[in-house]
Amino acid sequence: MICELYYWPGIQGRGEFVRLALEDAGAEYVDIALVPEAEGGGVPALERFLEGENVERPPFAPPFLRAGRQLIGQTANILLFLGGRLRLAPRDAASKLWTHQLQLTISDFIIEIHDTHHPLGGDLYYEEQKPAAKRRTKEFLANRLQKVLGYFERVVQRNPAGGPGIVGTRITYVDLSMAQVIAGLRYAFPLFSRKLLRACPRLRALHDEVFARSRIKRYVASGRRVALNNDDIFRRYPELDE
Amino acid sequence: MICELYYWPGIQGRGEFVRLALEDAGAEYVDIALVPEAEGGGVPALERFLEGENVERPPFAPPFLRAGRQLIGQTANILLFLGGRLRLAPRDAASKLWTHQLQLTISDFIIEIHDTHHPLGGDLYYEEQKPAAKRRTKEFLANRLQKVLGYFERVVQRNPAGGPGIVGTRITYVDLSMAQVIAGLRYAFPLFSRKLLRACPRLRALHDEVFARSRIKRYVASGRRVALNNDDIFRRYPELDE
Repeated sequence: MICELYYWPGIQGRGEFVRLALEDAGAEYVDIALVPEAEGGGVPALERFLEGENVERPPFAPPFLRAGRQLIGQTANILLFLGGRLRLAPRDAASKLWTHQLQLTISDFIIEIHDTHHPLGGDLYYEEQKPAAKRRTKEFLANRLQKVLGYFERVVQRNPAGGPGIVGTRITYVDLSMAQVIAGLRYAFPLFSRKLLRACPRLRALHDEVFARSRIKRYVASGRRVALNNDDIFRRYPELDE
Repeated sequence: MICELYYWPGIQGRGEFVRLALEDAGAEYVDIALVPEAEGGGVPALERFLEGENVERPPFAPPFLRAGRQLIGQTANILLFLGGRLRLAPRDAASKLWTHQLQLTISDFIIEIHDTHHPLGGDLYYEEQKPAAKRRTKEFLANRLQKVLGYFERVVQRNPAGGPGIVGTRITYVDLSMAQVIAGLRYAFPLFSRKLLRACPRLRALHDEVFARSRIKRYVASGRRVALNNDDIFRRYPELDE
């Protein structure tokens, strides 16, 4: 079965967490963001599912995955579905749930990261909320970022299998997601992330481990991975990284 | 197996979504928030798991559930675990995932609702961020609230089983959560929620259906359900509901 991934073109966004899993597993999939509109891809393809009146189980927002007759939304839910199929999740039920729990903690973290530049709402431009963004980011960098990174560093440290990943002995989808978050943080907040990651040697190693994996390297070099940019979750506004 | 639910005392918060499922199923459980500190309950009991150095799989934050040797965090993940066990989830795999997807959409919605009064960060008091709260809430009430409620109204409408719930023919945990959200919105934004819920007859009916269930009625009347208050996710600040 060849899956179709539906996500906005032009940004990595939440779609990238799914892409990294599909790419790392060497799965065949269609990335609808890369299919021209004239060939049935792009934004109109997304809108057919988001707004179509006959979609029985419509997703609230991208990303969503079409797998056979199933339409699956919510990033962490898609990874829960794909985890076992792509051999990127542990096999026992308790560890599966634990992996998903960590992914949900990453989901919350991503909202926090996004809201640093959009504290007053996603429907307003950054330029309309700069003073609030500055204040929120200050709070985020002073308290939350350290708290979340410290938590994941501890979790890797306590993995009784000794890593290199967060759960068990093999790399799972949550490792791919964590590496993506670290890459994003380094882009958005180069000064602060450098400072705070000093205390997180295991997370730094995990990032390097993931981006050294052969299929991930091939994907990054392929030109298919959209570059990070300021329409995305992770944005570099130098005035916020102070 | 008698589960233990760990959550902050004094608020409904995210713990209440788990409580409603346990209560509706008539499950025996220990609510650690109601156990006096002297008897091993309350905040110190939470902290043992959040901060204990020997906890192999520590949750990032409450609520978390202790079920035998498993410690399960993240509200939606707890409900995913309990759903089948409490007979509050559909049985087929695709519908289970769909129910969880909707619960995750509710999780995101709850963050949005919380951030109306804390747009600049959870570590600052409301009083320190009133102008930003006013601006964010205005956006939320003008755009997001309607969008999310409209989405769920459509989903109930498209349930081929015809309800009364969001998924299939029986009430599931996501129905209990949605009813709780509606109750919270009515508390926090009486004017706006009344106005916007006029266009959502199915959600209004779902709320009434849930709170008319015998075990939920008994729970609400028991005195164990904490009253909504302004330390909680849903807060009534009249200056925001305008």
